[in-house]
Amino acid sequence: MIKPDLTEYFVSTEILAQGKLLTVNCDQVRLANGHLTEREYVIHPGAVIIVPILANGNVILERQFRYPLRLVFIELPAGKIDANEDVLHTGQRELLEETGYSANEWVRLGQTHPCIGYSNEVIHIYLARSLIAGKHQRDADENLEVFELPFAQCLNMIVQGEITDGKTIAALFLAAQFLKSESAHG
Amino acid sequence: MIKPDLTEYFVSTEILAQGKLLTVNCDQVRLANGHLTEREYVIHPGAVIIVPILANGNVILERQFRYPLRLVFIELPAGKIDANEDVLHTGQRELLEETGYSANEWVRLGQTHPCIGYSNEVIHIYLARSLIAGKHQRDADENLEVFELPFAQCLNMIVQGEITDGKTIAALFLAAQFLKSESAHG
Repeated sequence: MIKPDLTEYFVSTEILAQGKLLTVNCDQVRLANGHLTEREYVIHPGAVIIVPILANGNVILERQFRYPLRLVFIELPAGKIDANEDVLHTGQRELLEETGYSANEWVRLGQTHPCIGYSNEVIHIYLARSLIAGKHQRDADENLEVFELPFAQCLNMIVQGEITDGKTIAALFLAAQFLKSESAHG
Repeated sequence: MIKPDLTEYFVSTEILAQGKLLTVNCDQVRLANGHLTEREYVIHPGAVIIVPILANGNVILERQFRYPLRLVFIELPAGKIDANEDVLHTGQRELLEETGYSANEWVRLGQTHPCIGYSNEVIHIYLARSLIAGKHQRDADENLEVFELPFAQCLNMIVQGEITDGKTIAALFLAAQFLKSESAHG
């Protein structure tokens, strides 16, 4: 059996929208069957999400109002990669800025693609331990609340529908698997 | 301690982009501290993702090229909600169209928000069992490959980084918890 060619080939591109936050491209593409079609998608610089775990096993979380859904979400600390910034540095910078914590141990857990249908965003996932509390660097317009919960309770809140943020679910799942394999081999 | 007001209040809206697929709004909002700022975000009709499980325990998956990332992804069947469509019906329609399967048992597992920073998309998650194979209804331009894998292998592929699609990770996690609780009570 010959595998189907799933690839879509670039023909041309134009900028559909250029906002302050979002750039949206519309590309003309050629499908494997020769047909031409269009693909509209958000251009994103990529992001980093951090699973910060305290010595007592608690996870540092945030409550943040997310305007597109007009709801407060429970999320892990995360933020966009600055131009030319190393991904680990983004994680360290965002953790410090948003929560005031720095960490002596960083473990890369993987990555997730939150929105493959209409965004090129990739989110890199890190575990952070050996945390040192300090002063956050949130600006006056960055309104979020930092709190902590036992790891098992975070997983239970996904099941209960209290945590629905996709990037936070992916990061907690990978962290749970990592901690399980670590304790099995420890 | 008084909890901070995290809410951002609507002031006005304008359409930043109106493509064939994507609508992007830019709203002016007032923060709790009185400052005005802007929020740009994609307007999305919502979607449904299905975890279809065969009698042998295998999961029905798809390989699909996702142009924004120029990569083939392994995903669960999913699709957008049509205007005025019941969410369960979307799930039944998309499963049939994309894979040819219909299902006699549907279990709602919850929902996930894939992209809370710049989209109002919500994805409803269903488990589908008692599957009946039939003929898919993909059109000539919908190029995807359907295959099946044992459930445990799907979870392992998340850990290995072979499944990175956020909605698929969230749905598999909720399905794993549901199946675990079912077998504990069964």
